[in-house]
Amino acid sequence: MKHILLLGAGRSTRSLIEYLLTHAHAHGWELTIADIQVDWIHTELGTPSYLYTQTLSIEENQQRESLIGQADLVLSMLPARFHPLVAESCLKLGKSMFTASYTPPEIKAMDSAIQSKNLLFLMECGLDPGLDHMSAMRVIHQIRAEGHELTGFESFTGGLLSPTPYDNPWEYKFTWNPRNVVLAGNGGAKFIQNGTYKYIPYHKLFNRTEIIHIPSHGYFEGYANRDCLKYLEVYQLQGIQTLYRGTLRRVGYCKAWNTFVQLGTTDDSFEMEGVAHMTHRDFINSFMYYNPSDSVELKLAHYMQLDMEGEEMYRLKWLGIFDEEPIGLDRGTPAQILEHILKKKWTLFPEDRDLIVMYHKFNFLDKGHPREIRSHMVIQGEDENHTGMAKTVGLPLGIAVRLYLEGKLDISGVRVPIIPELYEPILRELEAEGVRFVEREMKTD
Amino acid sequence: MKHILLLGAGRSTRSLIEYLLTHAHAHGWELTIADIQVDWIHTELGTPSYLYTQTLSIEENQQRESLIGQADLVLSMLPARFHPLVAESCLKLGKSMFTASYTPPEIKAMDSAIQSKNLLFLMECGLDPGLDHMSAMRVIHQIRAEGHELTGFESFTGGLLSPTPYDNPWEYKFTWNPRNVVLAGNGGAKFIQNGTYKYIPYHKLFNRTEIIHIPSHGYFEGYANRDCLKYLEVYQLQGIQTLYRGTLRRVGYCKAWNTFVQLGTTDDSFEMEGVAHMTHRDFINSFMYYNPSDSVELKLAHYMQLDMEGEEMYRLKWLGIFDEEPIGLDRGTPAQILEHILKKKWTLFPEDRDLIVMYHKFNFLDKGHPREIRSHMVIQGEDENHTGMAKTVGLPLGIAVRLYLEGKLDISGVRVPIIPELYEPILRELEAEGVRFVEREMKTD
Repeated sequence: MKHILLLGAGRSTRSLIEYLLTHAHAHGWELTIADIQVDWIHTELGTPSYLYTQTLSIEENQQRESLIGQADLVLSMLPARFHPLVAESCLKLGKSMFTASYTPPEIKAMDSAIQSKNLLFLMECGLDPGLDHMSAMRVIHQIRAEGHELTGFESFTGGLLSPTPYDNPWEYKFTWNPRNVVLAGNGGAKFIQNGTYKYIPYHKLFNRTEIIHIPSHGYFEGYANRDCLKYLEVYQLQGIQTLYRGTLRRVGYCKAWNTFVQLGTTDDSFEMEGVAHMTHRDFINSFMYYNPSDSVELKLAHYMQLDMEGEEMYRLKWLGIFDEEPIGLDRGTPAQILEHILKKKWTLFPEDRDLIVMYHKFNFLDKGHPREIRSHMVIQGEDENHTGMAKTVGLPLGIAVRLYLEGKLDISGVRVPIIPELYEPILRELEAEGVRFVEREMKTD
Repeated sequence: MKHILLLGAGRSTRSLIEYLLTHAHAHGWELTIADIQVDWIHTELGTPSYLYTQTLSIEENQQRESLIGQADLVLSMLPARFHPLVAESCLKLGKSMFTASYTPPEIKAMDSAIQSKNLLFLMECGLDPGLDHMSAMRVIHQIRAEGHELTGFESFTGGLLSPTPYDNPWEYKFTWNPRNVVLAGNGGAKFIQNGTYKYIPYHKLFNRTEIIHIPSHGYFEGYANRDCLKYLEVYQLQGIQTLYRGTLRRVGYCKAWNTFVQLGTTDDSFEMEGVAHMTHRDFINSFMYYNPSDSVELKLAHYMQLDMEGEEMYRLKWLGIFDEEPIGLDRGTPAQILEHILKKKWTLFPEDRDLIVMYHKFNFLDKGHPREIRSHMVIQGEDENHTGMAKTVGLPLGIAVRLYLEGKLDISGVRVPIIPELYEPILRELEAEGVRFVEREMKTD
């Protein structure tokens, strides 16, 4: 009887839990789900005999170690900051651990100790990171197997909103951690373009977008992600001419969002004065020059060089940022206040569906001739529980669990899913769930 | 026999040391100067019997405490990061301490202990901070003594370059710590304008300048300084309608400097790749989009919306940033590399003279009628040793030392020179040295 421990039961774990329950039933596994709040689990998922829940505060050492000690495999869907703590206990107690988050340096440093105990710490096995690795490496390995030379790799992912029946000129809402959306891009970006290292500071990031076309889904724009250079090593791309990773938004989003960046409203480094008595309009006005004879709208349009009747101003007005509405917070940094204001418009309705879009472009030389392959995947959420995000984050992890418990993963140490024995079965099974990458070769001159 | 210990003998301490020596001779004091390198002192200043030098590494506790233990008063002109260490020893050994630097929180926290030992820790007694406090508080106290209500206070300081006989379109060179000039403004600014708190992020700081006219010296531009709000408490300005502090540059500097900020070349948070093989031109190109058919100059002009033949491009070209000249560093952050490139053009020639400019504007209500007073001070360096900076930083501190040793300062605790018993004698004696504030009332409608 294999026993799985899932730490963290946030709303985005629904697809993972359902996958695990289906296979627990078929394979005779047991599943314990532990988190601060686990009441909803039996209410919504019933009480099968192989499902246990446990209230757990992850920082309580004794309780955490007791639970981990009883498991055969530990999954963590907790906030990423807790992973080093979980990893330490797993290493100490000799348990393998899987997550859908980036590998923190503390866990990377445990690699040899993990290997010496013949454990597997599978990290980055969700959507991004996760599916990005798998879908890219499948094509990269194929290009190399055919003896071609990879010269360029560009990759974009977006957690977006499906087209809505009502007006939302941003074509966007928060479908994931709102704070991360507000702070996105902070720190700037590094990438390689035609053999040259390129650097974009935060305040220019949303100016320097690329337009991406996805067949049957239309146009998107991508802005550069933080540090693309680490993929040189992970994907073994040393010497590549172009290496770029980005985030996707609907066309027009970035220019309007840039207004918030330029104003300074995404700053998270200091608390503002007098927040309790401020309206949305006061908030915006705090970042602009003083001129009592101009409206806040006119000052903004002038300061940001926007057309008063243009689409950016339309998007900004739609958000209510010029309204004389109290913010409703007692204190906060600019970023916290902006997040609070945005939530008033960017919170999902029950009928809203999220949309996950991933896109890769591979350039390579076939006996000196340039060729290009593109790959894309688009998936829409089914309902409030089975969002595109929950599926694409949870299913890859669930499938990896199944492979591991069936004894099909003969690897150890700290790993990410860039090897065929992981990505092949995972991508194959995902296709049956509707998560399908379409690869096509483009004409080149 | 009073014994003064001066810690730190950088080049900018020349005027302070000469002032102290003159008065040591007259009053029978002794002066010990301690620093890592003190050879130049006897070579350049001779060997009067009351002058001692001592090689000292400030972090060696025993030697530091031995020197402090023998002194009646300790002055520190060391880099500001060492002041908490010096202050601890002074408190422990029961010695008063004077500096020209901002009061760090560690020293502020010692206030009651310092008072209980009846010691005086006089901080911020140089130029800025120092003369700014004194010259402003003299006018503010006068306005209040006459029963008027202060409604606005704006204050600007600049460490600049006197007009040169040769072409330097920036009208600027490094006359003080180059690293601080490159990073200046990082962190943005907060101030109060007409009753509203205003915030400017770093990337907009050099766009939002004010033009200042100084009689007989022409026009300058000012950009906002970091956090003006702390002056609310220090100067007791609670409720004031406008409170703004800024840094002065020659007109046109800020728009051209903004190019470096916008590009991301003032970022100090990461090291660049391949620095050893990079030219100035490669460095600039790293921050721009890829387009091999355009020159780096054209790309920059387009990216920054500059006129190819305009004054900003003229300033940038004059600096040599487009030259195919090797940078000459093996590694570095963008800010470190930019500093290195700028030093090639912005290092003072022996015949260059620095120029210190300070300017205040006071608005107040006289029985409901608006009035305005402006105050300014401009001083040029005499020679390489007696720079304007050395004089204006060192002399206020020297005069404070004289007042203290003559028993004229009946105060204790952590203090800054905002009280008449400090600013009156100091400002009076500075006038004799050519450091004179000109106050004038402006016409108002």
